[in-house]
Amino acid sequence: MKRTCSIGFDFGTESVRVLIVNVRDGSIAGEAIEPFSHGVIDRTLPGSGETLPPDYALQHPQDWIDNAAVACRKAMNVGNLSPDEIVGIGVDFTSCTMLPTFANGTPLCLDDQFRSVPLAWPKLWKHHGAKREADRINEIAQERNEPWLARYGGIIGLEWFFPKIYETLNGAPEVFDAAETWIEAGDWFVWQLTGNLVRSTCQAGYKAQWNKQSGFPSRDYFKAIDPKLETITDKLVGPLASPGLQAGLLTRESAERFGLRQGIPVSAAVIDAHAGVPGAGVAAPSTLVMVMGTSSCHMLNSRVEQLVPGIAGVVEDGILPGYFGYETGQASVGDAFAWVSKILNQSHDALSREAACIAPGAGGVMAIDWLNGCRTPLMDGRLTGGFIGLSLGTTPGQLYRAMIEATAFGVRWICDTLRDAGVPVRRYVASGGLPKKSPLLMQIYADVLGEKITVASSDQPVALGAAILGAMAAGEQATGHAAMSQVIQAMAPQNDEIVYHPDLVARKKYEELYKHYRALTHPTGTIACSMRSLSDAQS
Amino acid sequence: MKRTCSIGFDFGTESVRVLIVNVRDGSIAGEAIEPFSHGVIDRTLPGSGETLPPDYALQHPQDWIDNAAVACRKAMNVGNLSPDEIVGIGVDFTSCTMLPTFANGTPLCLDDQFRSVPLAWPKLWKHHGAKREADRINEIAQERNEPWLARYGGIIGLEWFFPKIYETLNGAPEVFDAAETWIEAGDWFVWQLTGNLVRSTCQAGYKAQWNKQSGFPSRDYFKAIDPKLETITDKLVGPLASPGLQAGLLTRESAERFGLRQGIPVSAAVIDAHAGVPGAGVAAPSTLVMVMGTSSCHMLNSRVEQLVPGIAGVVEDGILPGYFGYETGQASVGDAFAWVSKILNQSHDALSREAACIAPGAGGVMAIDWLNGCRTPLMDGRLTGGFIGLSLGTTPGQLYRAMIEATAFGVRWICDTLRDAGVPVRRYVASGGLPKKSPLLMQIYADVLGEKITVASSDQPVALGAAILGAMAAGEQATGHAAMSQVIQAMAPQNDEIVYHPDLVARKKYEELYKHYRALTHPTGTIACSMRSLSDAQS
Repeated sequence: MKRTCSIGFDFGTESVRVLIVNVRDGSIAGEAIEPFSHGVIDRTLPGSGETLPPDYALQHPQDWIDNAAVACRKAMNVGNLSPDEIVGIGVDFTSCTMLPTFANGTPLCLDDQFRSVPLAWPKLWKHHGAKREADRINEIAQERNEPWLARYGGIIGLEWFFPKIYETLNGAPEVFDAAETWIEAGDWFVWQLTGNLVRSTCQAGYKAQWNKQSGFPSRDYFKAIDPKLETITDKLVGPLASPGLQAGLLTRESAERFGLRQGIPVSAAVIDAHAGVPGAGVAAPSTLVMVMGTSSCHMLNSRVEQLVPGIAGVVEDGILPGYFGYETGQASVGDAFAWVSKILNQSHDALSREAACIAPGAGGVMAIDWLNGCRTPLMDGRLTGGFIGLSLGTTPGQLYRAMIEATAFGVRWICDTLRDAGVPVRRYVASGGLPKKSPLLMQIYADVLGEKITVASSDQPVALGAAILGAMAAGEQATGHAAMSQVIQAMAPQNDEIVYHPDLVARKKYEELYKHYRALTHPTGTIACSMRSLSDAQS
Repeated sequence: MKRTCSIGFDFGTESVRVLIVNVRDGSIAGEAIEPFSHGVIDRTLPGSGETLPPDYALQHPQDWIDNAAVACRKAMNVGNLSPDEIVGIGVDFTSCTMLPTFANGTPLCLDDQFRSVPLAWPKLWKHHGAKREADRINEIAQERNEPWLARYGGIIGLEWFFPKIYETLNGAPEVFDAAETWIEAGDWFVWQLTGNLVRSTCQAGYKAQWNKQSGFPSRDYFKAIDPKLETITDKLVGPLASPGLQAGLLTRESAERFGLRQGIPVSAAVIDAHAGVPGAGVAAPSTLVMVMGTSSCHMLNSRVEQLVPGIAGVVEDGILPGYFGYETGQASVGDAFAWVSKILNQSHDALSREAACIAPGAGGVMAIDWLNGCRTPLMDGRLTGGFIGLSLGTTPGQLYRAMIEATAFGVRWICDTLRDAGVPVRRYVASGGLPKKSPLLMQIYADVLGEKITVASSDQPVALGAAILGAMAAGEQATGHAAMSQVIQAMAPQNDEIVYHPDLVARKKYEELYKHYRALTHPTGTIACSMRSLSDAQS
């Protein structure tokens, strides 16, 4: 019997995954993963062998096409799928991963003139070459009191779109001059599939200060940064579309390359993390989707737009069409647990077993989870982590549990920050790699939040989210689903869902401890100030 | 050729050591150590099998005599010494280790009527049963603004003399009523040797609020605590004498028991740590003797008497006759390093090697060394330790080095506190178990203090100090030394001394970091307050 499926292309840091999902019931029809042939380019440039500075992280655009095509054909084969069973395509991508191209879409780095210029290559999200540029971009925005600044918690990250352009202007002006457009990698891939240059409101909104009402920042602002940037937005051509809306149809050339059928609707791209919201089965507003991995990204759709301190961004149509999408984050979560495990020279399993036997409060130990700085709400990468309450009797399990509790307090702080700003948070869904690995972690989160937490069923919510957006772009006639919520509920059904309920005694104890955490982490308190000045003293 | 020697009896927690030292050159003529037959009594009473509460720690007075006699005979044998080669005896003892006795010196616990009553037994220094009593003793002292309180940094420890008496009144009134005198174990041992009940100004001054001008606290004060305590000082009969002054002569009975000669002068007792001052070869004032072991005790003789915040005590004639003896302390030093080593599951050697390769500042990590509370200057046992400045790149060696640096900042804080109060600190001598084990530790201390540090030559400064005090009690005719400083210099010569000089670059860096340490540990700062309230929340 003929199936009706949607394809999700999920572009990560090291590899691309293709997930083919049945739009009726969310069952996986085919799947494949391919590592990028050139991996992360952070030592030498392919071809020229040009050596890269230590903060560089690039990718090869040909990998995106070639490795994705291989993965797509493999997934189709694995699922024994025929091209006419595919009705939609969605694309999620790391962000801000971006590149300069010519007007026809050819990346500058594939041109002989620029092949050996590092800044002509696509800069991966974690490329950190634009520190100085980000500082100036922020400084000028603050000086001019730019209206969009508050939508990003008052700070633009060095990993974002304009710092990376500005870095290129400073470091390789010939590339800057030759670039006819600058584009997010996700949008570029959609362009290659459809022949249409359509920018995603997700990437533009979260990484390029775009806003539905006012567009990109003003020419005056860019001019104040550098006169050569004044007309930069002229190079950001193309209509904008929300993820889930159709960007175009698969071209014949792409259909051949990927082994698919010409004319399949393709959704506008989405940032990988944000695809996790529909992928976690969440269609409704006011539900916090906690994507928990090495770091945590907490996303929420809301009917209201408010300015929230330390938010990574609030973007209309940023995650799903029709909602204001909030993105907040914690810079180290799984990474923090891994650090504790490594420094204590003990396995996660052993520490977790010990921590599970310890009462809430970790025997008086309290951790500060800023091992990689604090994102929401303080937005300060200089901040560092800590432990207090240590005594000669403090055990490894207490340190491990304290770090888990600290990250839970961090989420609660984010929720309180959203609510204090007038953005309701009513339900909690956990997703990503950690929740299924650690029941202890989820129970502590439920106890600290004082609310039940549902663990999303899918093991691949991001790729699933991309496929869902592909199905949304395909429309009712192809999928049989009239509303967005129907698509999401059908394709990400919460089967055998795991729910954690707060323990009332633990919850009460954590109410008290959370006050201490807030006192310790107060932005003008001794610890935060000491951390900042210590960090300055070291640098 | 006949030698001229002095014996030091050094009573520890688990054992008694006898060190026989040549008074001419400090060479060791004989030595032996005997564990106490009953060890620390903390589970059941000998004989009756009575179960003890968890905070109890008792000793058996018969062990003090019997095991010391065995050790003394062994040491004499080892050294092939004849009784007429011994000219003086000194005694150091843990403190406050104390007991109730009858008027003739018989411990109550050796009487059939009280044998099965735990509180009739000698309470070891670390017996912690008198918490409630110490609280009340402090409360009343503060209410009445007792003049002696400031000499103890404003607080009386629960391990001290009167809390232990008061605990007995509350817990075993029949023992309290039957006690004819209460006495420090060191004084009791001297009493057994000489037949004279002479109290040491060291123990009385540091542990029983005695002062040369005003004696013990007033009757009114004790009455305010409990009417039954009003006349307690009537039971503290006997003259007081400074360590190094003669308490009496060895009786015939004791001479036979110990295999010695009748009539040898015996010095008044001294607290073990305090014996370490002459034992480190320090006769001059304004020299800080840092006795560094699991915890650190920093002692200083001075010509001036000042009130110093958080001091453990300032006592005239408390360490050596003629000086004001200051005792200050850090509650965890070696213990803190041991905790770091244990929790990181790595050896001291490995951590130390790694830490030695790290620049001052431990890569941005700063520790707070209060793993067992803070003694000088904050005198707050509720305080706990911590680490800040942690990042995903923080290494075990950084944590280890940060903890060493923190204890060094702690010593510097103590010196600054003394100087701020008008007590000069001019020279530094390190003693105890740690300094010879860890050159890294000593170099960091020299860099943080910004001054050279001399490591005391003797490996047994405490027992040596007791022997020196014995030689002082013996007098010029017996030893040939006219002045106290001559005895000390002759018996604790600084041969092959190890000196650490500050590195100027490191010193400058630590000047900056020390300011951060002080900000972090400010008594009204966020961390200290949070630690206190967290500790309250846990209890």
